Amino acid sequence: MSFSISLDATLATTKQQIHESFADFIAQQNIPEPKLANAIEYALLSGGKRIRPLLINLIGKSLGLSQTDLTPIGLAVECIHCYSLVHDDLPAMDDDDLRRGKPTCHIVYDEATAILAGDALQCMAFEVLASAHFSIFADKQRVELIALLSKAAGGCGMVAGQSIDLVSTNKQINIEQLTELHRLKTGALLEVCGALPCAISEHISIEHAELFRQFARHIGLAFQIQDDILDVTADTDTLGKPQGSDELANKSTFVSLLGLDGAKKELDKQHSKAVNALANLPYNTDELLSFTDFMVTRAY
Amino acid sequence: MSFSISLDATLATTKQQIHESFADFIAQQNIPEPKLANAIEYALLSGGKRIRPLLINLIGKSLGLSQTDLTPIGLAVECIHCYSLVHDDLPAMDDDDLRRGKPTCHIVYDEATAILAGDALQCMAFEVLASAHFSIFADKQRVELIALLSKAAGGCGMVAGQSIDLVSTNKQINIEQLTELHRLKTGALLEVCGALPCAISEHISIEHAELFRQFARHIGLAFQIQDDILDVTADTDTLGKPQGSDELANKSTFVSLLGLDGAKKELDKQHSKAVNALANLPYNTDELLSFTDFMVTRAY
Repeated sequence: MSFSISLDATLATTKQQIHESFADFIAQQNIPEPKLANAIEYALLSGGKRIRPLLINLIGKSLGLSQTDLTPIGLAVECIHCYSLVHDDLPAMDDDDLRRGKPTCHIVYDEATAILAGDALQCMAFEVLASAHFSIFADKQRVELIALLSKAAGGCGMVAGQSIDLVSTNKQINIEQLTELHRLKTGALLEVCGALPCAISEHISIEHAELFRQFARHIGLAFQIQDDILDVTADTDTLGKPQGSDELANKSTFVSLLGLDGAKKELDKQHSKAVNALANLPYNTDELLSFTDFMVTRAY
Repeated sequence: MSFSISLDATLATTKQQIHESFADFIAQQNIPEPKLANAIEYALLSGGKRIRPLLINLIGKSLGLSQTDLTPIGLAVECIHCYSLVHDDLPAMDDDDLRRGKPTCHIVYDEATAILAGDALQCMAFEVLASAHFSIFADKQRVELIALLSKAAGGCGMVAGQSIDLVSTNKQINIEQLTELHRLKTGALLEVCGALPCAISEHISIEHAELFRQFARHIGLAFQIQDDILDVTADTDTLGKPQGSDELANKSTFVSLLGLDGAKKELDKQHSKAVNALANLPYNTDELLSFTDFMVTRAY
């Protein structure tokens, strides 16, 4: 793994920040139903790679933004991500019992509680952005963050992707359809991680903001292709979920449509495009480069 | 029914506005998955009393606010309300096949689509508030609307109420616990309808805004008590859902805990408190008074 020491440290810090900021936020709240409160905490704090807050932190750092302002944004995106996992795992959806090596939310609690915990987490994302303390920016930026995140997470973004995924299961789809599916299902939320820090930067140009967004888009697709590759090459313990689950669920993947070599070639292509986007930016993007390498070489 | 002609007209106009503003909003969007798009439309446009947008319109009118600014707020609240109904009706939750005299969303489509349609609708509420065109007010007010709505809808509000409802089913609870349950489950969203128009009014005092909120709180409780009364006194055709469903589901209600006469007395009490709150406001609240009468005398 080409994960650099510096990036390892940033990742560890980000994971710690997310954990603490969530705990802080929850402490300020007072969720009156203990089972719901526990399920929300379980959904958000049961590990995970924290790719999205990490991406936000790294882009934000390269733009000179403060951690105070980046942490709530990462937390909001992670609330959306975690709610989507809880709902995706439900019996009526992907029916998964295992996530990150642990029983899924509806297995630990029950289906009703998992549905409600997901609902509360989605709501929390917007509550965080509307009410968290930010150091430098004004309501105009808050509104832009909420507009960007709601567009990425909703019926024209992540939720549409999940819906396309469900109607595409057990069907033959082509590579363009698969790419569109993932552009929405995983891609929309990862892409918006490229846009959110730019929305609170006071000096970035429209062109450079677009490059960060492109970078995040290619990273997003690379992430999904690597996921598909790992599903056939890694073992269950490493993955934290059953190996071969895509094939078992009769889902089209980059590997099933392009073969393992073809998928690896597409991964390289997305990697190059992400690196090129970074190369055209007048900021220190060294850590983002390491992150990009990590995304295409990660083994879990 | 003491529903006045003027209020009838306002209600009809509000229903039409909600229908049109949703159609406009959907037309601007481009939900790429037809089944999801249809389920979202079905969930939002299959009738309903539109009590919440109506309450927002009436309070807004008494404050002199423009319809342009009230419509998106009503739409956002209705998105939240409709998503909550779709999720509440799911087999893992209340398992209801009928809503407003029509098959519920997961019966018409399927469970997965109903979960996703609900998720998209919640997200849409915040997208509407972050991106809709408002005539008079600035980002500061948008942020306040989003903060208020997310607090009312989330894990400390409506979702908590639904969670308490689920853990209270098949259990003996007392009248205080039942009141708390409904203060959250139905009350939080109705109460915030009293706060949202005040948040965009430039002249209202804190004391008067609090009176509108109190008014909406009592209206909210009265609404629920009347719901419980109708569940034992009205027939299935009038209700649009099976009569006696609360008793069948082994849920405590104001009628089961206080008896029919006791429930009616409590309804009168909440009615009086709502009327008193209005009486102390220096605005024309004639239509709100008619609305209050409607809430305690409605037969459906």
